Amino acid sequence: MLYNQNPNIALIIIGNEILSGRTLDKNTQYVASRLAPLGVELREVRVVADIEGKIIAAVNELRKTYDYVITTGGIGPTHDDITSAAIAKAFGVELYRHPEAYAALAKHYGGEENLNHGRIKMTEIPENAELIVNPISIAPGFKMDNVFVLAGVPEIMQAMLENVIPHLRRGVPVKSKTVQVKTGESIIAGVMTELQNKYPNIDIGSYPYTNQPDSADGRHGTNIVFRSQDEKAIDAAIGEFAEALSKMKINCERK
Amino acid sequence: MLYNQNPNIALIIIGNEILSGRTLDKNTQYVASRLAPLGVELREVRVVADIEGKIIAAVNELRKTYDYVITTGGIGPTHDDITSAAIAKAFGVELYRHPEAYAALAKHYGGEENLNHGRIKMTEIPENAELIVNPISIAPGFKMDNVFVLAGVPEIMQAMLENVIPHLRRGVPVKSKTVQVKTGESIIAGVMTELQNKYPNIDIGSYPYTNQPDSADGRHGTNIVFRSQDEKAIDAAIGEFAEALSKMKINCERK
Repeated sequence: MLYNQNPNIALIIIGNEILSGRTLDKNTQYVASRLAPLGVELREVRVVADIEGKIIAAVNELRKTYDYVITTGGIGPTHDDITSAAIAKAFGVELYRHPEAYAALAKHYGGEENLNHGRIKMTEIPENAELIVNPISIAPGFKMDNVFVLAGVPEIMQAMLENVIPHLRRGVPVKSKTVQVKTGESIIAGVMTELQNKYPNIDIGSYPYTNQPDSADGRHGTNIVFRSQDEKAIDAAIGEFAEALSKMKINCERK
Repeated sequence: MLYNQNPNIALIIIGNEILSGRTLDKNTQYVASRLAPLGVELREVRVVADIEGKIIAAVNELRKTYDYVITTGGIGPTHDDITSAAIAKAFGVELYRHPEAYAALAKHYGGEENLNHGRIKMTEIPENAELIVNPISIAPGFKMDNVFVLAGVPEIMQAMLENVIPHLRRGVPVKSKTVQVKTGESIIAGVMTELQNKYPNIDIGSYPYTNQPDSADGRHGTNIVFRSQDEKAIDAAIGEFAEALSKMKINCERK
């Protein structure tokens, strides 16, 4: 986390279904991967229950700590969709029926007469919020100051995220290169520490794994991830690293 | 979240690799699914960066809020493994070389002479902590008051979690049953609200999805998840729900 001048973002996943283990969260990885090439760095994720007080507390803490906050989940038509109301309370404003959202949903559902209570609920947005268009299921998200409120279903969240991106300041993208080392990480920890000290503007991460049949001990391997805004520095560090490993007779491979 | 008498737990995932999008987090789903049948409820997850201050803040907040906290990641041999030091600071104690951990690693690596700096680092545990045995890669985790510190690699985390479970108070397991409804959720939102009001001891969650070719509109479907400690209540509610849908000529199926 060396890129402090880059805009940063926190993600709040509102979802009992993640906390119960029923659903595997894939939104974190998608948001991180989509924003990283823009130089926008995901710095924290919170998965909170569908409880108003928990949502309000997370939003109010994180919107002061990070440049941007994205929330996912809880903006649908059912009783358990409480995000819009919680965000309104977090900002101390009321919900109101947004005319554009109302018109869009009336059109989508084939006329105002088809807007039942649940569908009308999806048109109620906090005062002063700006709509975030939802091209998939139409019910919009919204932007409230530096907080972006999106749906939780991955397909819909992903489409809405494209309409968040124009609002974000861009940074200098962080490049990432990986070297796979065919040995356990404790053998090469010293080399990595020296390298990290020499290259403070590179974030060197060490990720061990097993099931590496062609490794030194037939089992352990390590992925070393070099991340920096300075690609030349990464290449220089990887060159030095490969040389040090070669002296130790340890194989490595750039991925 | 109706099961307030059950013991609850928060998970802190220490991992730049999750925040960068490089790695999909699977530990959340595993921990939730493994503990739910024991009546131990996952209530919050935080993914924080490998930054000491962030780890300390999350640990100190969550250990006061929840019955238990599990952390994953950052207890390996390399420079980026800073969890043990952060936990020691969170509790205001020092790290020391734990004799049992030292002996176990010396044995594992074929003698004390093979314990390099990185391996010795893995034997340094906060004062007063109790070891959590790691049957896979031997370097132990630990229990500090109500905080359990585990490795991040899923295979290792899962094995260590088995050694956490005996420390946890058990609750009454929450049963979960799912009804798949072949229509969009906004059509059935009203029925669900009534049902939720009638059965306050059931947590009724509504999870829409697309790609449902045999649904009413050829596209939208909804999974309704009924969760409660009272299985009979779930069955009664599902019976009523199916009857209401049948009157609306909407198909549903118990999963």
